[in-house]
Amino acid sequence: MIKPLVSLAAALALAAPALAQEEPKGEPSPNEIVAAAPQSDWVAIPQEDLLVMTLAPDVEGNERKVVIQLMPAPFSQGWVSNIRTLARAGWYDNISVNRVQDNYVVQWGDPNYDNPEATGEPKLLPEGLQVMEESGYTVDTQTMFDALGLADKPLRRLLNRDPYGLGSFALGWPVGLREAVGPDGDLADDLGSPLATGFAAAHCYGMVGVGRGYSPDTGSGAELYTVIGHAPRHLDRNIALVGRVIEGMEHLSSLPRGKGDLGFYAEDEFDKRTPILTVRVASDLPAVEQPKFEYLSTESEPFARYADARANRRDPFFIVPAGGADICNIPVPVRRAASQ
Amino acid sequence: MIKPLVSLAAALALAAPALAQEEPKGEPSPNEIVAAAPQSDWVAIPQEDLLVMTLAPDVEGNERKVVIQLMPAPFSQGWVSNIRTLARAGWYDNISVNRVQDNYVVQWGDPNYDNPEATGEPKLLPEGLQVMEESGYTVDTQTMFDALGLADKPLRRLLNRDPYGLGSFALGWPVGLREAVGPDGDLADDLGSPLATGFAAAHCYGMVGVGRGYSPDTGSGAELYTVIGHAPRHLDRNIALVGRVIEGMEHLSSLPRGKGDLGFYAEDEFDKRTPILTVRVASDLPAVEQPKFEYLSTESEPFARYADARANRRDPFFIVPAGGADICNIPVPVRRAASQ
Repeated sequence: MIKPLVSLAAALALAAPALAQEEPKGEPSPNEIVAAAPQSDWVAIPQEDLLVMTLAPDVEGNERKVVIQLMPAPFSQGWVSNIRTLARAGWYDNISVNRVQDNYVVQWGDPNYDNPEATGEPKLLPEGLQVMEESGYTVDTQTMFDALGLADKPLRRLLNRDPYGLGSFALGWPVGLREAVGPDGDLADDLGSPLATGFAAAHCYGMVGVGRGYSPDTGSGAELYTVIGHAPRHLDRNIALVGRVIEGMEHLSSLPRGKGDLGFYAEDEFDKRTPILTVRVASDLPAVEQPKFEYLSTESEPFARYADARANRRDPFFIVPAGGADICNIPVPVRRAASQ
Repeated sequence: MIKPLVSLAAALALAAPALAQEEPKGEPSPNEIVAAAPQSDWVAIPQEDLLVMTLAPDVEGNERKVVIQLMPAPFSQGWVSNIRTLARAGWYDNISVNRVQDNYVVQWGDPNYDNPEATGEPKLLPEGLQVMEESGYTVDTQTMFDALGLADKPLRRLLNRDPYGLGSFALGWPVGLREAVGPDGDLADDLGSPLATGFAAAHCYGMVGVGRGYSPDTGSGAELYTVIGHAPRHLDRNIALVGRVIEGMEHLSSLPRGKGDLGFYAEDEFDKRTPILTVRVASDLPAVEQPKFEYLSTESEPFARYADARANRRDPFFIVPAGGADICNIPVPVRRAASQ
């Protein structure tokens, strides 16, 4: 027999939001909740915290710009400062994307820095870079609670237990918490190091981190990567996260995968290395070129409803709510702001 | 000052395995544990469970083949049967990849089936397809325990609690379990539907699922997608999963993202649709062309050690073990088998 065709909504329905006029009645989708959030719950991202990375145009000559949001205090500020220093020194200009490993990371920097396919000497780093300690990979609980003004109800915003500890959001970022004594009691397991306690930003899709050597090296910020697959949360507390890609991620995630070790481009495919023309701190750009972005406060009531809707989808396509969602499956809403 | 350069191992170290001769001593990496597993713990994948999807060559004329492993009983067998019927009818030949949504899915099928960019009538489906019920999205606990021979120790292989319930592996696949009464007691929350209990395969990176319309439509298997980002576990129990990409994933994950709604290619970029030349069940191919694959038994002791190592990385690069890992961060090892 010939199967009856289903409606246009079918394929659409695989992802929210489906076209409103096509769909059965249901509760608001996560995107609809975000769209309805009042402007007062959106936080403008400082120009000093935005990096604009311009890649060489694609084969069709289309411009490729990637915008990265750097993390605010109390996260990773030494590395963030180094990244601004490197950008302002023009150090990132004319480097390239040298590694694309499927379901893991895209990594860019000097092709001769720690690259199994290196053919020359690495370029020298500018003066004035801070050498960070591993303690900077995490934020101690009290420092974070102070930053959140949560001293009196420290666990209020912790969403749920996951295999990495407790998952939550702070100051616009996904964070994991592990405590020697946590609400689940057994969080003391495996906590052999101070780094194993407190808050750590989570290696979710699109997060940007700092390549490093073996401990005690912590990386300078010259070698950066972003996550292009399932969250490699095992890197949390082991590497400094410094930001996330908030626009143009597709220019990195769709790059051809490298055939060399760990996804580095091999000698016979160096032509696949994507040149990075410039990396600029947005505040250094002419006012008209400064991108305006804002994120939905993770401390706001609409974010809490959005997170709940991500965990319990009741918009029309869904039959059974999951009853939960891991923090990397609750992307923090970030959008272009109306120009001021 | 000029920062000292770190060793070649540095960038390598971001991902395991680092080059053995370059690295400090440490415990075996997950990959090293897998490499050391005895052949007797590897399970040959039946040719009847392998699909070979041939895409049009890339711009450089390179062949692009994608190999998909279909799920065995007790998972999704009605849809799996439909997929073999569609492949054997040649229905998938000369369709295309019509949707690429960043950090979500790549979807292929008839460009005129449920596509907001449709320009013509959908092609008719062959006779003999089964119309499946939503109950097929999950496997009841007793059926799974019987398949695993676990009736006497039903929870032995459950790894950990995650926001979706309990995460584990069964018969080579990542599965989530939700029970009205589970070892955590509170799993009864939100279990309003029979679909909310029992086992469901997990929407991990590379898993292949069946596009469908609004309930009660369950999809035929003609419209398929694979996950190219962080696991959208909220789709578990809501869509039929039928397999996973085990080779050639990069040919799908690196495709240009679509600019239309939900990542469908818009009218001005139809030329980005990747033609699918043929899809064949491997057992229908000439013997010399049949790909031989095997997976590490998820019921084996080496898999248990591999999963533990993924959750507690102690190979040289790592400073702090995570203490856990979600099931989608423990990819089931699959490899080419030596030709028999």
